[in-house]
Amino acid sequence: MTTDRPPQSLFPDAARLGLLTDLYELTMAAGYYAHGLADRRATFELWVRRLPACRNFLVAAGLEQAVQYLQDLSFAPEQIDYLRHHPAFRAVPADWFDRLADFRFTGDLWAVPEGTVVFPGEPLLRIAAPLAEAQVIETYLITTLTVQTVVASKAARTAVAAGGRPVFDFGSRRAHGPQAGLLAARAAYIGGCVGTSNAEAGRLLNVPTLGTQAHAWIMSFDDEAEAFRKFAEVFPDASTLLIDTYDTVRGVRRALESGAAMQAVRIDSGDLAVLSREVRAVLDAAGRTDVKIVASGDLNEYKIHDLLKAGAPIDVFGVGTEMAVSRDDPALSAVYKLVELETDRGPVGRIKRSEGKATYPYAKQVYRRAGADGVFRGDVVAREAEPCDGEPLLTPVLRQGRLIEPLPAVEESRTRCRRQLDRLPPELLRLEAVPAYPVRMSQGLEAALHSLTDAAF
Amino acid sequence: MTTDRPPQSLFPDAARLGLLTDLYELTMAAGYYAHGLADRRATFELWVRRLPACRNFLVAAGLEQAVQYLQDLSFAPEQIDYLRHHPAFRAVPADWFDRLADFRFTGDLWAVPEGTVVFPGEPLLRIAAPLAEAQVIETYLITTLTVQTVVASKAARTAVAAGGRPVFDFGSRRAHGPQAGLLAARAAYIGGCVGTSNAEAGRLLNVPTLGTQAHAWIMSFDDEAEAFRKFAEVFPDASTLLIDTYDTVRGVRRALESGAAMQAVRIDSGDLAVLSREVRAVLDAAGRTDVKIVASGDLNEYKIHDLLKAGAPIDVFGVGTEMAVSRDDPALSAVYKLVELETDRGPVGRIKRSEGKATYPYAKQVYRRAGADGVFRGDVVAREAEPCDGEPLLTPVLRQGRLIEPLPAVEESRTRCRRQLDRLPPELLRLEAVPAYPVRMSQGLEAALHSLTDAAF
Repeated sequence: MTTDRPPQSLFPDAARLGLLTDLYELTMAAGYYAHGLADRRATFELWVRRLPACRNFLVAAGLEQAVQYLQDLSFAPEQIDYLRHHPAFRAVPADWFDRLADFRFTGDLWAVPEGTVVFPGEPLLRIAAPLAEAQVIETYLITTLTVQTVVASKAARTAVAAGGRPVFDFGSRRAHGPQAGLLAARAAYIGGCVGTSNAEAGRLLNVPTLGTQAHAWIMSFDDEAEAFRKFAEVFPDASTLLIDTYDTVRGVRRALESGAAMQAVRIDSGDLAVLSREVRAVLDAAGRTDVKIVASGDLNEYKIHDLLKAGAPIDVFGVGTEMAVSRDDPALSAVYKLVELETDRGPVGRIKRSEGKATYPYAKQVYRRAGADGVFRGDVVAREAEPCDGEPLLTPVLRQGRLIEPLPAVEESRTRCRRQLDRLPPELLRLEAVPAYPVRMSQGLEAALHSLTDAAF
Repeated sequence: MTTDRPPQSLFPDAARLGLLTDLYELTMAAGYYAHGLADRRATFELWVRRLPACRNFLVAAGLEQAVQYLQDLSFAPEQIDYLRHHPAFRAVPADWFDRLADFRFTGDLWAVPEGTVVFPGEPLLRIAAPLAEAQVIETYLITTLTVQTVVASKAARTAVAAGGRPVFDFGSRRAHGPQAGLLAARAAYIGGCVGTSNAEAGRLLNVPTLGTQAHAWIMSFDDEAEAFRKFAEVFPDASTLLIDTYDTVRGVRRALESGAAMQAVRIDSGDLAVLSREVRAVLDAAGRTDVKIVASGDLNEYKIHDLLKAGAPIDVFGVGTEMAVSRDDPALSAVYKLVELETDRGPVGRIKRSEGKATYPYAKQVYRRAGADGVFRGDVVAREAEPCDGEPLLTPVLRQGRLIEPLPAVEESRTRCRRQLDRLPPELLRLEAVPAYPVRMSQGLEAALHSLTDAAF
């Protein structure tokens, strides 16, 4: 069995976002509609349940793409047809499908700005919208916030480990598809990288891009020195020569002998601590103290830390796989839960009591408290209107589906992240796990939870 | 600093694929052009260096999306402008940018069909094309093949662990962005899942979709029994009731008492081995032996294996996070390397000798040998034209950029995978690592490597 259709791209499409969700969101939305509940005002919140074992903090990222989704969300005619003919939807009232043609997100969004450091239990965003709308968006919001938060958090650790030396995202080939590569480049920049190897990310996001050479360039010439020379002729101002194709130390000697213009050399294999020292010595002996050393090859925050501790004279790091997929833990336990619902007797709090997965009711705000030295002392998650000291983290983004003010440029989110990291208790910046940053639930939340837990279900 | 532009989607776009690559691919392509090498015929191969520690085999997937890329690849005017003004490209000959406007992939592609079991060192695909074209496509080909191969390989293990019980992909919310969710749904299906929760994947790929209920549905009603009843009224043929919102065993009793139509119940938390038995007993005591039990909640192949070994009466598994991001190892050491290049003295083999990253020269074919019982005995990687026993795995897909025959439907790739798994040495299907499946390089390849290694570099 083959097919005559052209090969499928599986690219998301701004005109066809409606079905990019789990089927149950759509059955539930239809069910709410059938029972007259679709327009009840509902509040949902999205938060992370636990930190990965190997993280002390998270960096929120991905909000801009979530906003794009909420603003463009609609169902294309062929998507509505798909549901109309789906066996599960046989008994759904016919007018629900008509209503889908006009489906738009009309709710309010509050969110933590991108680049903010966040912790488990703290809402990254809060949606207040008609129940059916608030339900349908769950899957997309989680994936969109999660992937960038995962990568930005890893990138922040990596940048901290590099201690001010530039780190570039080299991970597009390891990210989970071409869109994931763009998302990873964006998140890595917010988290503290200085740029990316991804050319389209550079164009779309206006962030610096770095390119060096692949082994294929070197292998395309009979002679390594000729390969260096020929490259530098075309790229005299951007010539980072890859010296490890055959033998790294011989490679740097050939680069020098070739007379090729070079700003840097790259080492992509072998013992980087040893080789970087040998290469530095060769360069310095030739009076080329200006030539920088770029290191890459399965690097992560731990290896960078160890290299620098060993005194490796590396100036720039290219980090791919480990950061772009957050290899030590590529997932977050992010959830999106109903916390408040309008009923005939007014808004009521909602909780879930599943074993190990219980939730707190009502719309919330997060307050971050700092000492006189500016260092964060701890956060309190409180009810939205509960008086509480500290800086509130959630800010209004969409009102009735419309953007309240332009979103920050990615550069601003990156600056926010750096400033947040500067104010974290310094032990949280260590690579190993340390005791958790203090986050507590307010008395108002505990009391609300208690009263609902005591109620009969 | 804010921005007036609308929020960015970062969706890939079939009319703008050119820059979705690492910058160095583009500098090298320009360099080849500047030196008259851009049209030299080059052969590159893509393979995986090592198996992840927790895998005994891989399932090739993602070829269709790679073909879509190669067929649609072009540079949009704004992408060419971006490069024209990029500081690295200052000294690039101006006519190279003009040439980019007409850039198309005109080469040949050989590839292992999707669903084929593959091992380290075996080319998943081989490109023969003008050097500049073959270079530019590296990044996109690796990411596209890798993500689906990672997920299909994990899905195959998961389906094997489930021993014939259906496994659904529930991972769209954990995948690395909305496109990654579609790619994961596709790959999981090829690897052996019976369907997905992703509605758009269901529509685009024509694969079964499963939806149940979220906790939000239950929490939207004051009474759990009412929530069950109201759902089943709208979905009488597709009613899987979620029973763990408050208390699982009480939940199934309420489902029965509610009189709601139900085909299945879902448990998403707690000790699934214990709870599934208790729930089964309650259902059976009520004469509802027809009601199936769906289990979900951080499942993976190990947990499924343990549950079934413990006799848990689970009929259907929903697997999310662990499969959609291949949590135990989300990356593959896939590389794409120049192996052969046309020169003034004819085609010559190319190798890389970097420490731990050496490669074999020349275009290759993989031959798989089976015993009289049909079980695979071992593979040989040989030079393309070298006589060798066994079934060749690489087949021609594109000739001069054009599809030779329609691609198989995803269903066919799924069938291929199942048949391949049936013929694997059974110990490779165990969840723990076992001694490697035998893959060896042919005498012809060893000789070719030897002669190049002896040559002076």
